[in-house]
Amino acid sequence: MPTINDNFLKLKAGYLFPEIARRVAAFQAENPDAKIIKLGIGDVTEPLPEACIIAMHKAVDDQSKRGTFHGYGPEQGYAWLREKIVEHDYAARGCDIAADEIFVSDGSKCDTGNILDILAPGGGPRGNIIAVCDPVYPVYVDTNVMRGNTGPAGDAGEYGGLVYLPMTAENGFNPPLPEGKVDVIYLCFPNNPTGAVAPKAVLEAYVQYALKHDALILFDAAYEAFITDPRIPHSIYEIDGAKECAIEFRSFSKNAGFTGTRCAFTVVPKGVTGLSGSGERVGLHRLWNRRQTTKFNGVSYIVQRGAEAVYSEAGGEQVRDLVDFYLANARLITKALTEAGMEVFGGVNAPYVWVKAPDGGTSWEFFDLLLREAHVVGTPGSGFGAAGEGYFRISAFNSRDAVQRAMERIGDQLLT
Amino acid sequence: MPTINDNFLKLKAGYLFPEIARRVAAFQAENPDAKIIKLGIGDVTEPLPEACIIAMHKAVDDQSKRGTFHGYGPEQGYAWLREKIVEHDYAARGCDIAADEIFVSDGSKCDTGNILDILAPGGGPRGNIIAVCDPVYPVYVDTNVMRGNTGPAGDAGEYGGLVYLPMTAENGFNPPLPEGKVDVIYLCFPNNPTGAVAPKAVLEAYVQYALKHDALILFDAAYEAFITDPRIPHSIYEIDGAKECAIEFRSFSKNAGFTGTRCAFTVVPKGVTGLSGSGERVGLHRLWNRRQTTKFNGVSYIVQRGAEAVYSEAGGEQVRDLVDFYLANARLITKALTEAGMEVFGGVNAPYVWVKAPDGGTSWEFFDLLLREAHVVGTPGSGFGAAGEGYFRISAFNSRDAVQRAMERIGDQLLT
Repeated sequence: MPTINDNFLKLKAGYLFPEIARRVAAFQAENPDAKIIKLGIGDVTEPLPEACIIAMHKAVDDQSKRGTFHGYGPEQGYAWLREKIVEHDYAARGCDIAADEIFVSDGSKCDTGNILDILAPGGGPRGNIIAVCDPVYPVYVDTNVMRGNTGPAGDAGEYGGLVYLPMTAENGFNPPLPEGKVDVIYLCFPNNPTGAVAPKAVLEAYVQYALKHDALILFDAAYEAFITDPRIPHSIYEIDGAKECAIEFRSFSKNAGFTGTRCAFTVVPKGVTGLSGSGERVGLHRLWNRRQTTKFNGVSYIVQRGAEAVYSEAGGEQVRDLVDFYLANARLITKALTEAGMEVFGGVNAPYVWVKAPDGGTSWEFFDLLLREAHVVGTPGSGFGAAGEGYFRISAFNSRDAVQRAMERIGDQLLT
Repeated sequence: MPTINDNFLKLKAGYLFPEIARRVAAFQAENPDAKIIKLGIGDVTEPLPEACIIAMHKAVDDQSKRGTFHGYGPEQGYAWLREKIVEHDYAARGCDIAADEIFVSDGSKCDTGNILDILAPGGGPRGNIIAVCDPVYPVYVDTNVMRGNTGPAGDAGEYGGLVYLPMTAENGFNPPLPEGKVDVIYLCFPNNPTGAVAPKAVLEAYVQYALKHDALILFDAAYEAFITDPRIPHSIYEIDGAKECAIEFRSFSKNAGFTGTRCAFTVVPKGVTGLSGSGERVGLHRLWNRRQTTKFNGVSYIVQRGAEAVYSEAGGEQVRDLVDFYLANARLITKALTEAGMEVFGGVNAPYVWVKAPDGGTSWEFFDLLLREAHVVGTPGSGFGAAGEGYFRISAFNSRDAVQRAMERIGDQLLT
């Protein structure tokens, strides 16, 4: 009989978003007239940039004629897209990344999970010690659970074997360097869920740690477009030495609104290595290339043409407008909550506002309060990890009107 | 230091298609005027059905307006697509498959590889014994190598630990049931590379074996649209009992020409189970759902709308025309090679023609002969496994003109 991957059974069944949905549904059933505004999930609401629309119409037409039809493309993505990524996202920032170090994919969620395929699985003598921030994007943790890199879950939802790096107001949301040696470190800046960014010195300390301890940094920069402070690095490769120790994940989801259109990319520099069982250093680029060519068949030609248009002059301006739109929402949220007397973080270089629950309350208490009093839904910080307890995430991804109405209600109900 | 997945180092470096490319390039360099016709890779050449083009233009427009914009969709695919799949591909054939047993994805290559995530990895006491046909689509083998389900490769390219089921002219390309007990069996019908189909009795024997030995069948039906014989099942679920032991992979790549547009689906019936370490039967549906929701973010809305149009009346007719077009190519190839005195298989219910190399020659000898004498490129059967030695695959995926010219040259050069 086929045996299953038992690690899946360690995953906590009560996942965050189903529980939110359950509470919202129960409240709505009891209060059928309540117009609930959802500022919970980090999904965009505004249409795609016009440049992307035009490019995808043209690409659809290409698929309608034999002379311009595209069948299987390169699993790594088309050269014309990889080259534009290099030019605009890396060369323009002084980062020396080659086009063949870019792997275009259908999502950062997929890539941050799939990257574990090329590393030794846990449970044996060669298993890797993994560090994640706390609070954290749950996909990093869950995919490590599936891969056998953790023990069972504890009561607070933390998994044995993982090294948690707390990000709290007390440490300015700068995760401390791991005590002792870890093999892999996940970092996400601008951060989901806290909205924090990492100053250059923080990233430098991480790269120095990784080089000194031979650790691998998995750097998720899905929100880099929201950085407004010119001193904040957009890419880990702005830090000297990162090309020897870091893989970077990028996405078109949050800048160009591709959450439902699906395009992302992962950068695996040729200098990043891991250790084989016989003690050799093996390039992770070679392994990832083999993984992608064997288990992936490239992103839709139509979608890659849409992503390419992000780098056109018009596309760039339209993306900037989209990002500015959501950042203006974030400012409205920050202002309203601050005026309501709450302690508010993030929201300046990120589309997420991270709020301290008032009066020392728990995340879920604040969730219930906001839902009951203001009919506004956010995300309890405790759902992102034990150190998120007492915090709350509000997403700026919504229409202006919805954000304004939500903030008026919060002002009316909570200001007093 | 991060340790790598050493199983990757077992993968044979000299993969089939790079070697073909090398020989073709060398020949072209020596014969710059030769107009080489490629009938090697199984990639479509004809434009998408008009219904899909229309649907995708509309979907692109949907993404341009706030009221019809689609952000994150369900990771499992939109209900409107899953329901149409059930209606047309399953209910219409008397198969009782529910819409929530359908998982829409960006490719069968991805799914046939990723499915191993939910099964116990090899190398430990709980590892699964895996059976594959020989010759075989290399992705099944390579992904099992990566997952630790094999030993190292032997000289003929076969991997220790795998059970190979030969498909040869001698057994009518019906792979024999495994001797002894295996846990997982990959089957692909219509078959890549041999073009063979499985009569109902063969599939019944496999399902009976799986039920008796508690084995899991991974059934790849990517080429089902090419079945012309009404007695041949299109789905494993046309066989009684398959819903308890089989997962089926389907694709829009070869019927609707989506190789570069990317859409597929996998069927995981709720009755299919695997064994946990504590001896419980666990539904693979639940595990695959958890895998997909954690490591995948759904297929592009635009592409799913294109796939939906395959099930419209116009789309269905256009797909039929496409399939008929390639099947007519296959008939031309079969006729020309037969007239040239060769032994030819497949090509009736499949887009692949499987040829016995003349005079007991090897696959690569025939490759070189065809390239040198007719300037035609195909795929050596030995590249698909040891039992493929002495055979050769010719793909019907090309323009009519290219196929005709290739067959004229073969007739001129090889008929004498």
